[in-house]
Amino acid sequence: MDKPVLYIIKVGGHLIDDQKRLAAFLELFSNLPATTNTEIPIYKLLVHGGGKMATQLGEQLGVPAQMVEGRRITDSETLKIVTMVYGGYLNKQLVVQLQQLGCNALGLTGADGNAVLAHKRENTQIEYGWVGDIDQVNSELFKTLLKTGIVPVVAPLTHNGKGQLLNTNADTLAQELAVSLSNIFTTSLLFTFEKEGVLADLAQENSLLSSVNAGEYHHLKAEGKIFSGMVPKLDNAFRALEAGVNQVIIGKAEKLHELIQGKAGTTLVK
Amino acid sequence: MDKPVLYIIKVGGHLIDDQKRLAAFLELFSNLPATTNTEIPIYKLLVHGGGKMATQLGEQLGVPAQMVEGRRITDSETLKIVTMVYGGYLNKQLVVQLQQLGCNALGLTGADGNAVLAHKRENTQIEYGWVGDIDQVNSELFKTLLKTGIVPVVAPLTHNGKGQLLNTNADTLAQELAVSLSNIFTTSLLFTFEKEGVLADLAQENSLLSSVNAGEYHHLKAEGKIFSGMVPKLDNAFRALEAGVNQVIIGKAEKLHELIQGKAGTTLVK
Repeated sequence: MDKPVLYIIKVGGHLIDDQKRLAAFLELFSNLPATTNTEIPIYKLLVHGGGKMATQLGEQLGVPAQMVEGRRITDSETLKIVTMVYGGYLNKQLVVQLQQLGCNALGLTGADGNAVLAHKRENTQIEYGWVGDIDQVNSELFKTLLKTGIVPVVAPLTHNGKGQLLNTNADTLAQELAVSLSNIFTTSLLFTFEKEGVLADLAQENSLLSSVNAGEYHHLKAEGKIFSGMVPKLDNAFRALEAGVNQVIIGKAEKLHELIQGKAGTTLVK
Repeated sequence: MDKPVLYIIKVGGHLIDDQKRLAAFLELFSNLPATTNTEIPIYKLLVHGGGKMATQLGEQLGVPAQMVEGRRITDSETLKIVTMVYGGYLNKQLVVQLQQLGCNALGLTGADGNAVLAHKRENTQIEYGWVGDIDQVNSELFKTLLKTGIVPVVAPLTHNGKGQLLNTNADTLAQELAVSLSNIFTTSLLFTFEKEGVLADLAQENSLLSSVNAGEYHHLKAEGKIFSGMVPKLDNAFRALEAGVNQVIIGKAEKLHELIQGKAGTTLVK
């Protein structure tokens, strides 16, 4: 029998900071089809990033964001703030709005139900603080929740099993969930953001590549045609495909349904 | 067949503010027996209150606590703060510490999985703001989680199903959970706090009443022997017993195991 389908959808900070666009996105998310054309059940899971609120709250509390090479350093006070903002305020805002739309959302961090185990990033040139690299996803938990009709909404926090929460990159979290759950589900990993997808020519918004395979990607990267911020995203995406994820789709959050139908965004294939 | 047993344990703010006592309590909580003497499974669920952190954070952010007759008025800014603190920081601290102790905790607000539906308190002399009175508990969700081996850790927040989170009294929340779940489980509701239990004589710490029935309670109340802060707690407790809860136990958090064995605290019976 075919495995059920699971969409793992990452929604980023830009959208989370914009109430109106976020509400429109959540409506699209809650209206995703429940089965494929061939009546295979479709499950879904949302992973959210942070947005500006943690930085703003930190400033109000005299805990300025410390960024090194575009990465947030997570000292103890910063961890407290991101736990409040990512695990509390943002996660519950998404849940309460999805509930209103009839979508049975349940918010989780990686600590809840031992969903995602990680270890503190050590021995790197930069001291990241309380930042976690993922070791293990509790697939059984997600399977149980999904099959009960629950839609997990996952905040970018994990734990180490020793009483410590860890700040974790939301893209990586989404990817690790997709890889781990591909044993049980046919997984599609969707990175939604403010751009149309991967462009053949950065200067041309209409040069969208509707599909890119690994060979084509290496070519584009070698030619310097991939926007530098996109490189780690795509490297991760191709790694996910190698590790069992069925497809990775990158595109505009507002076009969620078109992304899934292959009518918008860029679909990455092996 | 006998219904499985469920302990619904409320832990209050005083304990939450004290790292050391909290850690000791969580160890007791995680070591509760898994079955009765007659091999009936025992499940457990934790409901937590707020503590001082919301007030402190509010002061730091220029949102002073507004108390009217001992109750916190929840305006929009205060709701944001309690969502961050109760739903985020405190809830996740409890979860991550319980996980460390091998207890498979999963944090919830009433919005998560549509766990607890409420409506905004209206038409009262005091304008409480975003405060919720409970309408419905999703027993099926709790049953599913508990039977999967998950220990729910519930923050004192509910939702109205229309996109609004609501601040909700943790004692009342624990009580409503106990009443609703008594259809499925033999429920014991435990209010743990810093006192030994109900005293026959307020001046005498050693005048603990090990058991009080409804008749005795009305007698004590009429004689003015019940500490005024205790009256709403006990009124609620007797209402819970009338509504199907098997027993209500009130006593010191540090004596959790003795409370359950009837060797400490006050057990309320019909």
